[in-house]
Amino acid sequence: MNELFGLTNLPYGVYSVDGSTPRVATRYGDHVVDLATLLGDDTFDAPTLNPFMAQGKARWDEVRTAIVAALSDGLPTEGVHPVADVVLHLPFEVADYVDFYASEHHASNLGRLFRPDNPDPLLPNWRHLPVSYTGRASSVVVSGTDIVRPCGQRKPVDADVPVFGPSVRLDIEAELGFVVGVGNAMGTPIAVEDAEQHLFGAILFNDWSARDIQAWEYVPLGPHLGKSFASTISPWVVPMAALEAARVDTPTQDPAVLPYLALERPWGLDIDLEVEWNGEVVSRPPYASMYWSPAQMLAHLTVNGAPTRTGDLFASGTISGPEPDQVGSFIERGQGFLEDDDVVVLRATAPGANDTRIGFGEARGRITKARS
Amino acid sequence: MNELFGLTNLPYGVYSVDGSTPRVATRYGDHVVDLATLLGDDTFDAPTLNPFMAQGKARWDEVRTAIVAALSDGLPTEGVHPVADVVLHLPFEVADYVDFYASEHHASNLGRLFRPDNPDPLLPNWRHLPVSYTGRASSVVVSGTDIVRPCGQRKPVDADVPVFGPSVRLDIEAELGFVVGVGNAMGTPIAVEDAEQHLFGAILFNDWSARDIQAWEYVPLGPHLGKSFASTISPWVVPMAALEAARVDTPTQDPAVLPYLALERPWGLDIDLEVEWNGEVVSRPPYASMYWSPAQMLAHLTVNGAPTRTGDLFASGTISGPEPDQVGSFIERGQGFLEDDDVVVLRATAPGANDTRIGFGEARGRITKARS
Repeated sequence: MNELFGLTNLPYGVYSVDGSTPRVATRYGDHVVDLATLLGDDTFDAPTLNPFMAQGKARWDEVRTAIVAALSDGLPTEGVHPVADVVLHLPFEVADYVDFYASEHHASNLGRLFRPDNPDPLLPNWRHLPVSYTGRASSVVVSGTDIVRPCGQRKPVDADVPVFGPSVRLDIEAELGFVVGVGNAMGTPIAVEDAEQHLFGAILFNDWSARDIQAWEYVPLGPHLGKSFASTISPWVVPMAALEAARVDTPTQDPAVLPYLALERPWGLDIDLEVEWNGEVVSRPPYASMYWSPAQMLAHLTVNGAPTRTGDLFASGTISGPEPDQVGSFIERGQGFLEDDDVVVLRATAPGANDTRIGFGEARGRITKARS
Repeated sequence: MNELFGLTNLPYGVYSVDGSTPRVATRYGDHVVDLATLLGDDTFDAPTLNPFMAQGKARWDEVRTAIVAALSDGLPTEGVHPVADVVLHLPFEVADYVDFYASEHHASNLGRLFRPDNPDPLLPNWRHLPVSYTGRASSVVVSGTDIVRPCGQRKPVDADVPVFGPSVRLDIEAELGFVVGVGNAMGTPIAVEDAEQHLFGAILFNDWSARDIQAWEYVPLGPHLGKSFASTISPWVVPMAALEAARVDTPTQDPAVLPYLALERPWGLDIDLEVEWNGEVVSRPPYASMYWSPAQMLAHLTVNGAPTRTGDLFASGTISGPEPDQVGSFIERGQGFLEDDDVVVLRATAPGANDTRIGFGEARGRITKARS
């Protein structure tokens, strides 16, 4: 049995088998377990997690307890399939998607690359607020979806005008994504201490990035076409409840944050990622090193009264640790970009309850050649 | 009869009366006409335009012809209400929302404000691509919705650190929005000459902007919290078919655009906007002065393979003409920002077929005081 998917994990996903209508499942070991069958509950006879996520934290806790009870004697006889036999789908319908920039090491690495003369590689706002931008929800795809190399405008360094063609600086960004189960009404911010009432779970997130397209377009309104062609997520949403044992303090925040961002309990997450490039693990980004926590991200993005909804997705930004073999993007490694047919896989594990470890599965994508 | 809503306009909206379930209607003169009743077609027995928009251009044309025929003898006896008696709802479910920056005068005015020492107020990329960013879809609201003054971080000029509180530089941006009826599959860009197969209609769009929040947050990833608290749209979607008579050439684009942005037919729109501030018309932005056209915007935002969907909304960016009384934002006027209880109304008219004029109705919002 796959120990990373034991009773202390129980992530949620959506599967089909032999072309059946997609339905909600959990993963136990190397099997998917149909939840409508297991629990006799029609909420899970749905092609997305959205109806269940909208029911709120008390219900999430109740269902988790019920699944543990139902599986405590082992796999049931009905509604069970080897994970290798099923198709895993995008697990939820994405409402709005926001990408943060929460790693001090990543932001500093990019600052040194782009502003080499600045004594502080971080911009003045960076330590005061979790910097972020809104991205395209429609191009979030599930692990295994091929990524077509994007075309677009880029300006070669020695050229006066841009050229059009396939990106030649195609990169990854290894991130975690957080899924909002229950949103907030417009005008009513989510307090940082209420984040757990809203956050349903976490996923792996690869924010594919065309650095040449991005570099030419992004001043002054931020990245757009350099990112909007695709983002890959893992098919299993790990419940926030399963990550309780992974809670750690975030790094010291200095200067002190404004009161609306002040944490009452640890909201860092001791999650170890790995980036596999064409079969070789090239980096191990440590999520515990992230400066800004998901609770702070959610409090910040609603502090102006912006409403979130069931299915809102926000990602952490590239996760980079302090060491060269802990960076979450290739631009930081300085050793080349993605070629056609390259395959990148993100994976992660974290401490679970009772001295277990839990897994996130994988977020996998293969680069295919640009369409002419 | 209101001549701006004659048979050459026939915009689409969603209404309810006395708490009824919202349904699709057109507006004829000063009445709303229930379309499921008028045409005997269940597509319109829906709380949004999305099902109809998804049916495609041949169907849009057929329905428009059928409405003209059905109304040619005047108002029907059933399913008709004075517009003053109904509630108008958000007419469509917004999928992804993108905001462009397509006015040369607006971009130049802001360039002179923010980069006074630069000889060219436009940045190097501006004439090569329609600069844009993705915004929050969940906070798009219909005309008449109160706008709560947002709170957030801003850094006073003479301060070392940011303060938190209500925005003190709350602004408008007078824009047009364009609604995608039929999207494109991931990896398959929309050619500029195919834009009319995808674009369903146009609306008024007020991109409320907290300039102080925006100024502090927006480097390097673009505007976010300064914009995401609210955007107001008009309740009537004017069909692109009704805007055929408003087609004009866009201003000369120099340098020549890359081939994927080259227009084969005029895609400028001779639409006259007005901005009313507390009962006084303070500006008349001319849409015909916009450098980038909606067909170019759509071609650009999909050229990297990003998929659009039914209900995608993209807005033009602030519309500013060359004259001081034609600017679409208050920051360009230099005469103050919005106070609590201020009311801003956008309106627009355009040439319709047969020497008529057609109206967009209004996008109205009142500022209410910040929540503490």
